[in-house]
Amino acid sequence: MKKIVSLPAEDGYRMPGEFEPHRGCVMIWPVRPGSWPYGGKEAQKSFLEIAEAISESEKVWMLCDHEHAAKLRGILRDKPEIYVLEIPTDDAWARDVGPTCVRNRQGNVRGISWEFNAWGGTFDGLYAHWEKDDRAAKAICRELEMDCYDAHPFVLEGGSIHSDGEGTVLVTEACLLSPGRNPQMTKEEIENHLKQYLGAEKIIWLPRGIYQDETNEHVDNVCAFVRPGEVVLAWTDNREDPQWELSMASLKVLETERDARGRAFQIHRLPIPEKPVCITEQELLGFQFEEGEDRREAGERLAASYVNFYISNGGVIVPQFGDVNDKKALKILENLFPERKIYPIWARPIIVGGGNIHCITQQIPQGKDIDI
Amino acid sequence: MKKIVSLPAEDGYRMPGEFEPHRGCVMIWPVRPGSWPYGGKEAQKSFLEIAEAISESEKVWMLCDHEHAAKLRGILRDKPEIYVLEIPTDDAWARDVGPTCVRNRQGNVRGISWEFNAWGGTFDGLYAHWEKDDRAAKAICRELEMDCYDAHPFVLEGGSIHSDGEGTVLVTEACLLSPGRNPQMTKEEIENHLKQYLGAEKIIWLPRGIYQDETNEHVDNVCAFVRPGEVVLAWTDNREDPQWELSMASLKVLETERDARGRAFQIHRLPIPEKPVCITEQELLGFQFEEGEDRREAGERLAASYVNFYISNGGVIVPQFGDVNDKKALKILENLFPERKIYPIWARPIIVGGGNIHCITQQIPQGKDIDI
Repeated sequence: MKKIVSLPAEDGYRMPGEFEPHRGCVMIWPVRPGSWPYGGKEAQKSFLEIAEAISESEKVWMLCDHEHAAKLRGILRDKPEIYVLEIPTDDAWARDVGPTCVRNRQGNVRGISWEFNAWGGTFDGLYAHWEKDDRAAKAICRELEMDCYDAHPFVLEGGSIHSDGEGTVLVTEACLLSPGRNPQMTKEEIENHLKQYLGAEKIIWLPRGIYQDETNEHVDNVCAFVRPGEVVLAWTDNREDPQWELSMASLKVLETERDARGRAFQIHRLPIPEKPVCITEQELLGFQFEEGEDRREAGERLAASYVNFYISNGGVIVPQFGDVNDKKALKILENLFPERKIYPIWARPIIVGGGNIHCITQQIPQGKDIDI
Repeated sequence: MKKIVSLPAEDGYRMPGEFEPHRGCVMIWPVRPGSWPYGGKEAQKSFLEIAEAISESEKVWMLCDHEHAAKLRGILRDKPEIYVLEIPTDDAWARDVGPTCVRNRQGNVRGISWEFNAWGGTFDGLYAHWEKDDRAAKAICRELEMDCYDAHPFVLEGGSIHSDGEGTVLVTEACLLSPGRNPQMTKEEIENHLKQYLGAEKIIWLPRGIYQDETNEHVDNVCAFVRPGEVVLAWTDNREDPQWELSMASLKVLETERDARGRAFQIHRLPIPEKPVCITEQELLGFQFEEGEDRREAGERLAASYVNFYISNGGVIVPQFGDVNDKKALKILENLFPERKIYPIWARPIIVGGGNIHCITQQIPQGKDIDI
């Protein structure tokens, strides 16, 4: 692993779409008491189901600290496609702390290590210590033998960007312009930075994400590429729902914008759960918060969205909330991904921790001659 | 009224503290159906009580559109200290749409007309049309015969700044760095702009304001000057309350910062209501929302804070919520303002609209030879 001083775009690298072939997927075993109530039992069950679904078509690397590694190896002993990597982290959000990977025309893959500050640092970050998370991307690159661009001190999370692999990147203003990220930069400077790192020619700025999303409204919870020129957008027809206005604002942008290749977007509306998913008193009692860690209130609405799926080589792993719209979402995605198997996953234990399936996974693109 | 092309600081003007002598106070008669439920009856009662309290020691100008002017004149017929000004607005937030006034050493007073975009424009603004609000500051300056600086296209609201009159201005990062205000500017550029317009030498950036404050957390709801070097800070000792972390972050800044004159701050903690003030189903039914207007949800917590008081020449007008901390807040303010009369006002009808007493008032500083 060598340290690189140039920028990905000038080196001919760009970020592939998630729907392009993967070498594998990085996940992190969930143990943080302030994110996963009651010792993380329920969350671990869901994480395991997701890892198994993904491992049907690609490798999975499950990060874990030294303390939990032996037990995890035991749990995974009959699952050879799920590898344990002993890398310590502060929580389990592989999407946000893992490397964002870029690839050149020759099929070389490199990672990017953004500065991570727990979604807002001292301004509105969700926990007070994020040193291990901040080092995770580089550690993963080392383990997977990828060179790594160091983007520090530029603050970004993997969940705040989506690439179509053809020069277009989706982001939200709510997140990327949040005071807790890069307040010393103007919107234009941030856009130029993204272009240079992701090899993009066009940045599409959606205004907002999902109501109450504590990542400052990551794009990966509200809008995702199905393939170049085609997106799903989290949606509600209920004008009384606070999400209506947020989704409508994004729809307007998507309807008027063109992508880097000049195409208009084909937009598929994916309903949010009809009944808001809220945290219960019972769940609340299972958390153990640290000093400086964000807390929840009973009844608080969670940012549940079916857009937070993961596209594996052979499947789409989709969150389910026990809502009447669960099946509708599956049906829509089934039609949009006819060549992939749809895996419905009971995701309440993950959304209770503040994110969903896409947030806890990070694809490593397929390189030209790397083992798969 | 002449248009001025120079900047206040270079002309020798600066923003006085609210505790300095006033020529009077601007308010706006509340009639908007999406802010004031059930025809605004309750809100109008509270506004009237506030205007009466203020008029005991200074003039009050009550803005009103042509449609409601005759009725309002009737209501005010035996209150000669409250003048009706026929200026149309989109709602009733005089603090945010009225002029921010600056004064020079000779006692000349000028207004500033910021760009107003309903607290976030198309990004997260609270209503879709704000043209009348945006023109209000200039119209008020014309009526009150003050020259006016035009700060457009710099977006700012009066509630997002507090001055000590001696070169120090308090703001919040949450508001001033919000993507809906001036995303084309860096934090440093915004700071320099404030210094030039307000004649300030030091900008104190508190990170956050009051939890759930839909103005993106205006400073005037969380922290206010009692006099130079001395502030009140909205506070809770309850670590389970989401406000705890926000207030703690501001406390840390205030404890380490110095003001423009090099003084450490004397910080007085003013409790927030002990029991969260939430909107009821009953209140919700009384609203009539327009297309593109922000809606509320039943049970939603409102940003109730006693810091949102108004300092008049002879008094302090303080919001009351029917909470056990109502009296505690009055007691603290009584001690801090021994020379002023304390006016407790039933403020639930105002917080239901999204703001409080400070938000609906805007002082016009006393000039050298202006009628009072």
